[in-house]
Amino acid sequence: MNDGVHAVAWTYGALTLLDQRRLPGETVYLRIDDVDGAIDAIRDMVVRGAPAIGIAAAYGAVLAARAAWRAYGAGWKGPWEADLERLAGARPTAVNLVWAVRRMRHLGLDLPDDQDPEPALLDEARAIHAEDLAANLRMGELGAALVDSRCGVLTHCNAGALATGGYGTALGVIRSAWKEGKIERVYADETRPWLQGARLTAWELLQDGIPVTLLADGAAAWLMKQGRVGWVIVGADRIAANGDVANKIGTYALALAARRHGVRFMVVAPTSTIDLSLASGEDIPIEERPADEVLELGGKRVAAAGAEAWNPAFDVTPAELVDAIVTERGVLVHPVHECLVDLMQD
Amino acid sequence: MNDGVHAVAWTYGALTLLDQRRLPGETVYLRIDDVDGAIDAIRDMVVRGAPAIGIAAAYGAVLAARAAWRAYGAGWKGPWEADLERLAGARPTAVNLVWAVRRMRHLGLDLPDDQDPEPALLDEARAIHAEDLAANLRMGELGAALVDSRCGVLTHCNAGALATGGYGTALGVIRSAWKEGKIERVYADETRPWLQGARLTAWELLQDGIPVTLLADGAAAWLMKQGRVGWVIVGADRIAANGDVANKIGTYALALAARRHGVRFMVVAPTSTIDLSLASGEDIPIEERPADEVLELGGKRVAAAGAEAWNPAFDVTPAELVDAIVTERGVLVHPVHECLVDLMQD
Repeated sequence: MNDGVHAVAWTYGALTLLDQRRLPGETVYLRIDDVDGAIDAIRDMVVRGAPAIGIAAAYGAVLAARAAWRAYGAGWKGPWEADLERLAGARPTAVNLVWAVRRMRHLGLDLPDDQDPEPALLDEARAIHAEDLAANLRMGELGAALVDSRCGVLTHCNAGALATGGYGTALGVIRSAWKEGKIERVYADETRPWLQGARLTAWELLQDGIPVTLLADGAAAWLMKQGRVGWVIVGADRIAANGDVANKIGTYALALAARRHGVRFMVVAPTSTIDLSLASGEDIPIEERPADEVLELGGKRVAAAGAEAWNPAFDVTPAELVDAIVTERGVLVHPVHECLVDLMQD
Repeated sequence: MNDGVHAVAWTYGALTLLDQRRLPGETVYLRIDDVDGAIDAIRDMVVRGAPAIGIAAAYGAVLAARAAWRAYGAGWKGPWEADLERLAGARPTAVNLVWAVRRMRHLGLDLPDDQDPEPALLDEARAIHAEDLAANLRMGELGAALVDSRCGVLTHCNAGALATGGYGTALGVIRSAWKEGKIERVYADETRPWLQGARLTAWELLQDGIPVTLLADGAAAWLMKQGRVGWVIVGADRIAANGDVANKIGTYALALAARRHGVRFMVVAPTSTIDLSLASGEDIPIEERPADEVLELGGKRVAAAGAEAWNPAFDVTPAELVDAIVTERGVLVHPVHECLVDLMQD
């Protein structure tokens, strides 16, 4: 099965990232061989998408361990933990980053001090990567099964192969449902300010031969009013214990419009995205990114000189507006709160 | 009183338009001396904004009459009416265009066949222009009076001096309320795909020394969730007899979010925007503009090759989501239906 493009890979002993800032114009891979390179790549959005960030960070933890082992030998764990802390803080909202770093740390601290930690850590990073891909394939099946009649679907940002270990979360469901003939048309918000929809989602779907119709973010409610959409299908960056969902800015507005029009709202995310330590979405830290992302476009200033900008990268959709959360362990239907806790205890 | 920049003027015997496609980077005025130039300028959005389109069309009708009189003498009216029909069809949604052309036609057909019609028609076009400016100043007062406690306001697209005969509709209210110290902060959606918010509204407000914070359209609902906005204030392109409001794409999503958050929603439009011939917003023709406006930015392709786009230029906000319609003849508060008919009968 084709799992789409590869945003993150471990090749020739280093982390290789497809530079998502330059798509779709250029397909450029960056080779990253130290943890600072991994941190910069996450912060600067060379790699983006909650699961892909987690996987990149896992490989980053391998690079950090390699350097610490070379520099400090049996004393590698202290400096390594300091690197992990910086790695986990590269971006604040997606919890998969923290989850992956914590998993690497857990394994690493159990390793003997006097052996090269790289082989065992690399195995763990590869496991995180492979599990994510497998989770996406499973979520693709589960989510597609929810689409009970042929309809148009709307997605936001890019929750595809580019945002994950492969196949995608929201786009995984769309790939599976498309194959099953359940989708009339895929609509994608262009997703300002970073244009993940126009640049990444359209690129990725077209590579798989799935036609896609872009629209300005402001047009999505009007699209739903026309009756052209049966499901909104999105990914997530963090899901709180009560089912509130942090995802790319603009998702909340979609959920409001979906509820108004009887359009169903599906969130597709692996359990690594679920953060039971936070009671509700109010506790999720929301990253504010530089104003220039709004004031500029493609490096060129578009806004009037002197204008300021407010640029939150994410928003929170309350659980009450979510009809289904699809995870690799199963589907939670509205209301999700108690099922979510049960699911994580399995 | 400063009425802001001048988007439309009649100077040295011709129509002069500020080319709004090139703002804020360049301030270029185009001289237009025939009706085809006026039609092209309206269609290509050299001039945009419902009232400004109406004023430009009125001057365009003068240019058409001049040419018809020169070519046909006493037989000028037939060819002139044909030109007026093309002029009225340059863009479909804003009713001010049809309204202005009809008013010019009404006056013109009453003129004697054997006299140069230009002086009388130019007087009428100038009256339309002056009345629009006066209406905006009046609406500024009336709308500002509705803002009963100091708050943040959010606007969409550009309903300012650039979109009108001067001062602006929504931005006229914002100018007046700002002067009265009632506004904490002006937020402006960037308004994709044409970026009227980032390019025009920010430019225009900053020229008047009013600070403005831009945001991606998808962030507006999240801004309201933060409690930062007391009023959404927008213009309109056409208002149906039941109070449904056609305005720039994205307005409907704002109205949904505003209702959710208890934010009030004000539409500011002169009575020339009201079309009692249409029972509801369902009858308003919605212009679909070229896909390239979404697929490109500043003439540069941003979307993946092969992607399609759906690009409706307007949407319709149902009357039930509108808290107040401010016209130069008075303010209608929710529910507006019966008051609207009464207002137009005054």
